[in-house]
Amino acid sequence: MSTNAAGEPDGRLKALGLELGVLQRALRARGVPVIVVVEGWNASGISEAIAALLYGLDPRGVDFHAFGRPVEEELAHSFLRRFWVRTPAHGRIAVFARSWYSRAMAEMLTGIDWQARLDRALTSITTFERQLTDDGTLILKFFLQISKEEQRRRLLARERDPLTAWMITQNDWDFHRQYDELTPVIQRIQDRTEAPCAPWRRVEADDPGPAIEDVLSTVVKRLRARLDEPGIAEGRRAETLPPIGGDSPLDRADLSLSTSRHEYEHVAPECQTKLRTAQYSLYRRRIPLMIVYEGWDAAGKGGSIKRLTLPMNPRGCTVVPIGRPTEDELAHHYLWRFYQQFPPAGEIRIFDRSWYGRVLVERVEGLATEPQWRRAYNEINEMERAYVEDGGGLVKFWLEIDAGTQLRRFREREENPDKRWKITEEDWRNREKWEQYAVAVREMIARTHTPQAPWTVVESNDKLFARIKAQRTVIEYVNGLI
Amino acid sequence: MSTNAAGEPDGRLKALGLELGVLQRALRARGVPVIVVVEGWNASGISEAIAALLYGLDPRGVDFHAFGRPVEEELAHSFLRRFWVRTPAHGRIAVFARSWYSRAMAEMLTGIDWQARLDRALTSITTFERQLTDDGTLILKFFLQISKEEQRRRLLARERDPLTAWMITQNDWDFHRQYDELTPVIQRIQDRTEAPCAPWRRVEADDPGPAIEDVLSTVVKRLRARLDEPGIAEGRRAETLPPIGGDSPLDRADLSLSTSRHEYEHVAPECQTKLRTAQYSLYRRRIPLMIVYEGWDAAGKGGSIKRLTLPMNPRGCTVVPIGRPTEDELAHHYLWRFYQQFPPAGEIRIFDRSWYGRVLVERVEGLATEPQWRRAYNEINEMERAYVEDGGGLVKFWLEIDAGTQLRRFREREENPDKRWKITEEDWRNREKWEQYAVAVREMIARTHTPQAPWTVVESNDKLFARIKAQRTVIEYVNGLI
Repeated sequence: MSTNAAGEPDGRLKALGLELGVLQRALRARGVPVIVVVEGWNASGISEAIAALLYGLDPRGVDFHAFGRPVEEELAHSFLRRFWVRTPAHGRIAVFARSWYSRAMAEMLTGIDWQARLDRALTSITTFERQLTDDGTLILKFFLQISKEEQRRRLLARERDPLTAWMITQNDWDFHRQYDELTPVIQRIQDRTEAPCAPWRRVEADDPGPAIEDVLSTVVKRLRARLDEPGIAEGRRAETLPPIGGDSPLDRADLSLSTSRHEYEHVAPECQTKLRTAQYSLYRRRIPLMIVYEGWDAAGKGGSIKRLTLPMNPRGCTVVPIGRPTEDELAHHYLWRFYQQFPPAGEIRIFDRSWYGRVLVERVEGLATEPQWRRAYNEINEMERAYVEDGGGLVKFWLEIDAGTQLRRFREREENPDKRWKITEEDWRNREKWEQYAVAVREMIARTHTPQAPWTVVESNDKLFARIKAQRTVIEYVNGLI
Repeated sequence: MSTNAAGEPDGRLKALGLELGVLQRALRARGVPVIVVVEGWNASGISEAIAALLYGLDPRGVDFHAFGRPVEEELAHSFLRRFWVRTPAHGRIAVFARSWYSRAMAEMLTGIDWQARLDRALTSITTFERQLTDDGTLILKFFLQISKEEQRRRLLARERDPLTAWMITQNDWDFHRQYDELTPVIQRIQDRTEAPCAPWRRVEADDPGPAIEDVLSTVVKRLRARLDEPGIAEGRRAETLPPIGGDSPLDRADLSLSTSRHEYEHVAPECQTKLRTAQYSLYRRRIPLMIVYEGWDAAGKGGSIKRLTLPMNPRGCTVVPIGRPTEDELAHHYLWRFYQQFPPAGEIRIFDRSWYGRVLVERVEGLATEPQWRRAYNEINEMERAYVEDGGGLVKFWLEIDAGTQLRRFREREENPDKRWKITEEDWRNREKWEQYAVAVREMIARTHTPQAPWTVVESNDKLFARIKAQRTVIEYVNGLI
């Protein structure tokens, strides 16, 4: 490595560092998020390469994430969620010392069905990286390659140094002994996850100096190439979507369905008991559950949610109200803020509006571009499928009312001093776009009504009927899970 | 409890719920943060009381925090930090199911020196609550009181119900058996932490219905009283500060100190080795270390930080650049964002600017009111003392240069194309206020140069001297810790 007498970067390394800083400022100005993943064999010099990289970067624009032993918080969540929440905001560079790749290796490479589990993890990873790069993120991936003999030398040297001896565990030697068997697995992982916007760079790292320069010069080259691309921060264009079918669960919704007060009072207490039982069962089995509420304004989402949570223990059942995104949320992939809210194992999160805003309000109000919202159907399906396949529970409600019922409820709210705050100018404006929303709703349900995450349309002209239907749906769903 | 046939809140409870909603909206509009703590004996009905409270509140303005068994992330941090990061933003209500009180009980009530440790925890708690209420937060604290016999009945009933049997552990029975010994301890804790802005309410909870109504009606009463106070969101006025002494470490700074390139190249590599050793020692002993860099613009903070981090393993050593606060940070107590960045056990965080901005830039530029920045000296001393007493390490650097050196460096930056981005109009504007900043710096050092967290003034007219002094200070400090 080119350093001066004081042990600081010099010559070529210093020049690369300066150029890194220049490129970082340019990408920041263009709002491009960058992910740099550094993977490699144990003792291959990941920390040293990253130290050199960070030396050239302005810390004000960098997030650094090291994946060591998985911590409790991580293990309480599904595979992808742990990485999604660490994706960088527009214009920031996230550097990962080990990553989803090491996690996939560590968690998938044991047990009789490891090949199948690894394949599923690789599918998840491919989806994850594609969704980010579609949104404009640049992903650079390095693998530091050392020979088996060199690894042995380094592990022994660390063991001999009292400063580092404690770092070397049996696990390191186990991996070392499997060097030859792991080599083709690593090759396969890299082949499966090679992509134009997320390329791998294999770095020969037996000699640390050139390896570090290789990492830095590759980062410089790729960042520069990215800056030269036209429309760098726009993300990918939308795919062509197949036409949607004519058959929709919406058509089967019978809005005349109703429940009498008498029947409601008979059924509600029983539902409350069953909901309490359902919550405890999920908690004991450490199954997370997401309940999504979407529906027309004044369809009764809030009231239904209140009745659902009332019998539950508030420890472990949280309502997540989704409003306008914050500055920070807007600076990330739109799914990022929802991943933050995924329930940990055993807990329930009730979303009062959700990621479906992308294909409803953001579509109708022009807050998302057409390529963005068209891309979203598939992205949402992928997210939901991965979450459910990892063992999570998901219930999705669409609360359906007709335009006349909405109008009556708006007027009631205006006339009732206790409820007047609930109704705003915006509600009236949205109402004028009823037809546009109806098109968006129909398309949303058609494209995201999947076997693993089906919609339940809740006929909500009658509030008592709607509340009971939602509660029963949750109860039956949980009984099916456990 | 007053509920209707469907098991939903009715009568008095419904009326209280509606009023809660009204008060919540009013306090939100005034930007008042509210904390509601619900404590009590095991099985005293904490969850039920909170469920009733949440039923009346709009979830869009509520954060709910349950403290069960402490999780890993929590245990890696000092006592107060875990609660600070969960304090509500302006206008939001944070509801705590158990809190710092239960944590203090659980962590302090064993071992031979439990009385001393409990006292220290209570001092921390008093400080924590006072700092928040000084800033305008309203804190309401409930203790649900049940008799020993009633607790026995409830624990037995839960054990008999297959749904809840698993919740009752040996620990619950151990606490139950100590009911009589714990009673005076709980009383003492409440007496020590009673305060006008953070009052306790003891609720007789043998009968659950009235207990829940008591909690709700007390919350309603106190929120209403708060709304009637004049200037409710302004926080407390400043205390009178004693005059500062004439003797300052700044006066002892000899700005002619310098290190030759030859000497630097001799010393720097040795310092790098020692810094690496220091980092590993902290990591092994799980001691967190904060290094604060404050100093004049162009004093060389960035370069000094780069040289300090270069030899360190980036896993476990992070630079925290402090810039303008985000929207979310502005909506909290100004210390909140720094607590977020406190290092977990064994890690190093280097702050490039810090909480001292409150008494420097925020004071000089009028971003903090005079009562706010005058209050800050004591708040900062309390924060640093609690952190150090909990076993954390803290080094504070003031990088001192004279005005002539700053001018020369500003001009050099303007002339060097690689460095021009570093200098902005703002730097020149700040420079015009040199005298005002000098007064603020002198007062800051005088008021916050404490035995447990002393300042190190780094003479920085010569960059090589300054870098070596900073490194040696860190090395010696760590050697003194371990």
